[in-house]
Amino acid sequence: MNLYSIENPSFLKGKSDEELKGLAQDIREFLIQSCSETGGHIGANLGVVELSIALHKYFDSPADKFLFDVGHQAYIHKILTGRISEFDTLRQYKGLCGFPKMRESEHDVWEAGHSSTSLSAAMGMAKARDIQGGTHHIVPVIGDGALTGGMALEALNHIGSDRTNMTIILNDNEMSIAPNVGAMHNMLGRMRTNTQYNRVKHDIEDFINRLPQVGSKLRDMADRIKDSMKYLVVNGIFFEELGIKYIGPVDGHDFEDLAQAIKSSKDYNGPVVVHVITKKGKGYHPAEADKLGKWHGLGPYKIDTGEVLGSKTTPSWSEFMSNTILEYAKEDRRIVALTPAMPVGSKLTKFQNELPDQFFDVGIAEQHAVTMAGGLAASGMRPYLAIYSTFLQRGYDQLLHDVDRQNLNVLIGIDRSGLVGADGETHQGVFDISFISPLPNIVLMMPKDEIEASRMIDLSLRHEGPAAIRYPRGNVKGLDMGGQREPLKLGEWEEVVAGDDMAIISFGPTLDLAIDASAALKEAGIDAKVINARFIKPLDEKMLLALGASSMPLVTVEESMLAGGLGSMIASFMADHHFTNPVKRIGIDNEYVEHGDVNKLLEDLGISTANIILQSKTLMEQTDEKEVKN
Amino acid sequence: MNLYSIENPSFLKGKSDEELKGLAQDIREFLIQSCSETGGHIGANLGVVELSIALHKYFDSPADKFLFDVGHQAYIHKILTGRISEFDTLRQYKGLCGFPKMRESEHDVWEAGHSSTSLSAAMGMAKARDIQGGTHHIVPVIGDGALTGGMALEALNHIGSDRTNMTIILNDNEMSIAPNVGAMHNMLGRMRTNTQYNRVKHDIEDFINRLPQVGSKLRDMADRIKDSMKYLVVNGIFFEELGIKYIGPVDGHDFEDLAQAIKSSKDYNGPVVVHVITKKGKGYHPAEADKLGKWHGLGPYKIDTGEVLGSKTTPSWSEFMSNTILEYAKEDRRIVALTPAMPVGSKLTKFQNELPDQFFDVGIAEQHAVTMAGGLAASGMRPYLAIYSTFLQRGYDQLLHDVDRQNLNVLIGIDRSGLVGADGETHQGVFDISFISPLPNIVLMMPKDEIEASRMIDLSLRHEGPAAIRYPRGNVKGLDMGGQREPLKLGEWEEVVAGDDMAIISFGPTLDLAIDASAALKEAGIDAKVINARFIKPLDEKMLLALGASSMPLVTVEESMLAGGLGSMIASFMADHHFTNPVKRIGIDNEYVEHGDVNKLLEDLGISTANIILQSKTLMEQTDEKEVKN
Repeated sequence: MNLYSIENPSFLKGKSDEELKGLAQDIREFLIQSCSETGGHIGANLGVVELSIALHKYFDSPADKFLFDVGHQAYIHKILTGRISEFDTLRQYKGLCGFPKMRESEHDVWEAGHSSTSLSAAMGMAKARDIQGGTHHIVPVIGDGALTGGMALEALNHIGSDRTNMTIILNDNEMSIAPNVGAMHNMLGRMRTNTQYNRVKHDIEDFINRLPQVGSKLRDMADRIKDSMKYLVVNGIFFEELGIKYIGPVDGHDFEDLAQAIKSSKDYNGPVVVHVITKKGKGYHPAEADKLGKWHGLGPYKIDTGEVLGSKTTPSWSEFMSNTILEYAKEDRRIVALTPAMPVGSKLTKFQNELPDQFFDVGIAEQHAVTMAGGLAASGMRPYLAIYSTFLQRGYDQLLHDVDRQNLNVLIGIDRSGLVGADGETHQGVFDISFISPLPNIVLMMPKDEIEASRMIDLSLRHEGPAAIRYPRGNVKGLDMGGQREPLKLGEWEEVVAGDDMAIISFGPTLDLAIDASAALKEAGIDAKVINARFIKPLDEKMLLALGASSMPLVTVEESMLAGGLGSMIASFMADHHFTNPVKRIGIDNEYVEHGDVNKLLEDLGISTANIILQSKTLMEQTDEKEVKN
Repeated sequence: MNLYSIENPSFLKGKSDEELKGLAQDIREFLIQSCSETGGHIGANLGVVELSIALHKYFDSPADKFLFDVGHQAYIHKILTGRISEFDTLRQYKGLCGFPKMRESEHDVWEAGHSSTSLSAAMGMAKARDIQGGTHHIVPVIGDGALTGGMALEALNHIGSDRTNMTIILNDNEMSIAPNVGAMHNMLGRMRTNTQYNRVKHDIEDFINRLPQVGSKLRDMADRIKDSMKYLVVNGIFFEELGIKYIGPVDGHDFEDLAQAIKSSKDYNGPVVVHVITKKGKGYHPAEADKLGKWHGLGPYKIDTGEVLGSKTTPSWSEFMSNTILEYAKEDRRIVALTPAMPVGSKLTKFQNELPDQFFDVGIAEQHAVTMAGGLAASGMRPYLAIYSTFLQRGYDQLLHDVDRQNLNVLIGIDRSGLVGADGETHQGVFDISFISPLPNIVLMMPKDEIEASRMIDLSLRHEGPAAIRYPRGNVKGLDMGGQREPLKLGEWEEVVAGDDMAIISFGPTLDLAIDASAALKEAGIDAKVINARFIKPLDEKMLLALGASSMPLVTVEESMLAGGLGSMIASFMADHHFTNPVKRIGIDNEYVEHGDVNKLLEDLGISTANIILQSKTLMEQTDEKEVKN
């Protein structure tokens, strides 16, 4: 059919399974083609083509509410709710969002990006419905990986005991982002291949049926056993133990199976989980064959070969960090690496392969990851936890209460610090400086390049107490790493460009913007110093005192929230020491930053060479005026 | 025996059960007496007297590692490790900590305060041991309530799949802080009274034994069924499903039972959970009879009656907030209240009793609580979540990613904001301003008294978007609440004392310190204005611009971290607007604040009238000097 004619999912109601199969085929072809140009979470979406169609056929969105956990698997939902014509702008600046987005459609009733939130939100929506006297269905769609996240388990516990009416779709693709970790994964595996349970069940029934000769007392007992067995042997014993009715496993690519399961779930009064088995990448060989999760979220690719496009000349920051730590870990068994389900994203697979005993992938379980690192450190180890900036928000209390408060030797590699681009507002790593800086013990750094990063790693692995190194998405500069390097001194900043009129202070990738701005300013007659504030905590008080004494205007530049950022710390420092340097802070001012090309976003935010130049000139002019007035 | 002679737990090795019983009796009497004078977590500790003794008899601390989850149940552990003589200073300024504390003893190998961290830390310690080739035991002791916390479930999942050697002591007292909530609680209940499982098991064995006449094929089948049944019918099916060996339930007040269970757990190779049934308050009637958790943590009491001492003349802040919200909720069914296991602490029991359908206690599950509130709001409700400041750290990502980012109408009552006193560094509510202020949408407030609080509640329940009201531990002032009140204007501060020379800016309880300081300063000839910065976000820009234009020195006072606090926001604002007012920030400078009397702690931190006066005078002098120089 012409997918572009779809306005809303009501057209599905009268369709036969045959017609649905055709539709599924069309959607699949469209997705493979479209994502080959824009990139995107193709694997996850190819796995839920039939499931999404069936959900929209048998439920009535938007009256019924779908909550897509994580949310990157909602492309088919977007197509079925009339958004196909926007797919050429997917995940691009001002374009279609890669996740559900309330303002795009009334069919998007909950937004996500991070994992494991759908069940809690569904519980809230179900309770609201019950209080309001509504009868609509609440349908969270959650992957097997997301189910290991603590908050999903908290929610299951509450839902089960409360017996709240909702239909949980457990989309079990045997792989969250990386191959799943954990006991729950094993359990789901047992359910998938529930031959043992089924055999026992049949055996017992068989056995009892072959005993017609037994007396009535034995017969009663046999019946009682059979009833108890029904309870005990039933599939999904884990869910049933929690008070949640289990239906499944269901073939997620078979419309008949899906129809039957969804229909019986709708009839059930109470919480029910429909265990749907799907195949990530279904229908597209390169994605289907992926065992590691490389096809999780990616850029444009060649359709025929599956070759991912884009010229990669230097290693990614993740790769550089992980491999550098690996070299240290080979020499020192105290150094171990942890990741919450991101061995591929954080490029720790080489570490995992070479030092499997010193490596832990704990699954989607950020809280556990942080405190487990604390436990390792409390026993004399030197754990390195690689974690995305926004996911560290999930382990905040653990970082504060367990790691920092106990002053433990945990090194955090804060991956994807700063803007990340296509994944948008749920993934921009722009809050960590604000929430980490108030912690009394931690050292917080960001390197300007990979040489500085290696000096920071070296320092961190000798430092007593917690430390964190921020690093961005994207690639390192490709510098020559040979030669001796002087040890970095804790808290020491660096003047990278000298200058007498004013100072531009930055760190990480934006330092280059400052250097470029300084060059342009010098041409315009303003002698702007550039300072590399590589230690965000502790500040370089000696250098700040010197700057304060000079009274020169300061411009701070950070790819991070202004509130609680480096600029605010510098402004506070100057105030504390009765200095009156004018300070202009450049950064993100109280807004969430949407998806799109990082450079465009930075320009919009004023985190650009042009704006640094503009603000520097303005500040210099204002200062001159003031001086003239005085 | 003379408890004061105990230096370490080695004396327990040779003791008979009879002698242990005597020891338990002595410890109980000591605790009831000692806590009647100092206050403390008496209920939880009376429940684990025998358990703590047995653990120390059969394990070898400090070689074997005990991790007490939450940690308030470690009093007996402290006695058995030679700290009884310090109990008269329990939870007092510079005295014995109410939680494990590494610097107090080598037997305290992990510190806590917040719930559900022990299993993750234990996993870290166990992995460290395995890498280091150690053979010691890792023994987390966790309550049934703490087990509902998401991070504990994340850890169980990892431990079970990894089959890591450790002995988890599940201290099941049927009550965490409030009566437990959730499916897991029901499940533990089923295990406790596992008659159904046991009956099925016996029935089947009986049945099979009565069939000697059946042929060998049937006999084989029967054996196979019996084996399978063993797996299926075993107690602790939940844990066994997760891959963790289950031993129990065990009577936690019977030394013989405890000995047997602990010994077999030590022999087991892999993770094992020992399910110990204890009674909170055991041996002291007033604590034992408590069904609500009032005897969880408390002040001094009369031993004979259990009457808690202390003159309470006005309602607590928690009481005031919860009851005010209740009045609104009676008129507006959109208003619902949530608490993560703190109905008593947050004084929501009246709400619960009067409007049970609009009330949700979700158990120890802060992440779930925050996002469930988001789900309620996304469906048109007006949820009020009462949560302690430090526990909100557990729901940080949920507050950011789910509530604030989606701009949902959730009202957070941030209970125990500021210093809390006896519970110490894990419970001081001093980070929330720093981690909440960077969130773009939320309104953050703190009232100076209960009249202002009621105006804030009124504003919040009409406001579109998330809001949070901080309120302290302790009691309200007891003001007359009658009469009409003008609606509060969003973001509007208040000049509470006029003055021309300088301004002192504060909010919440410390505003009174500022007022007192201003009075003293006026006597000393300094005309200090006092400003009530009741909106921490958004700032009152109009008032700040006026202050900036006046160039007057500013002193900011907050019972909170300086980094990311109000003072830093004001210093940044002044810099942004090219004002040069000298700013002195008073608050907590990069340290964790230990337990003790709040007033003493505040004095040490310089958050006192005397220090405000001193700093104001100094600032005025410095400013005068500067002006003279110019």
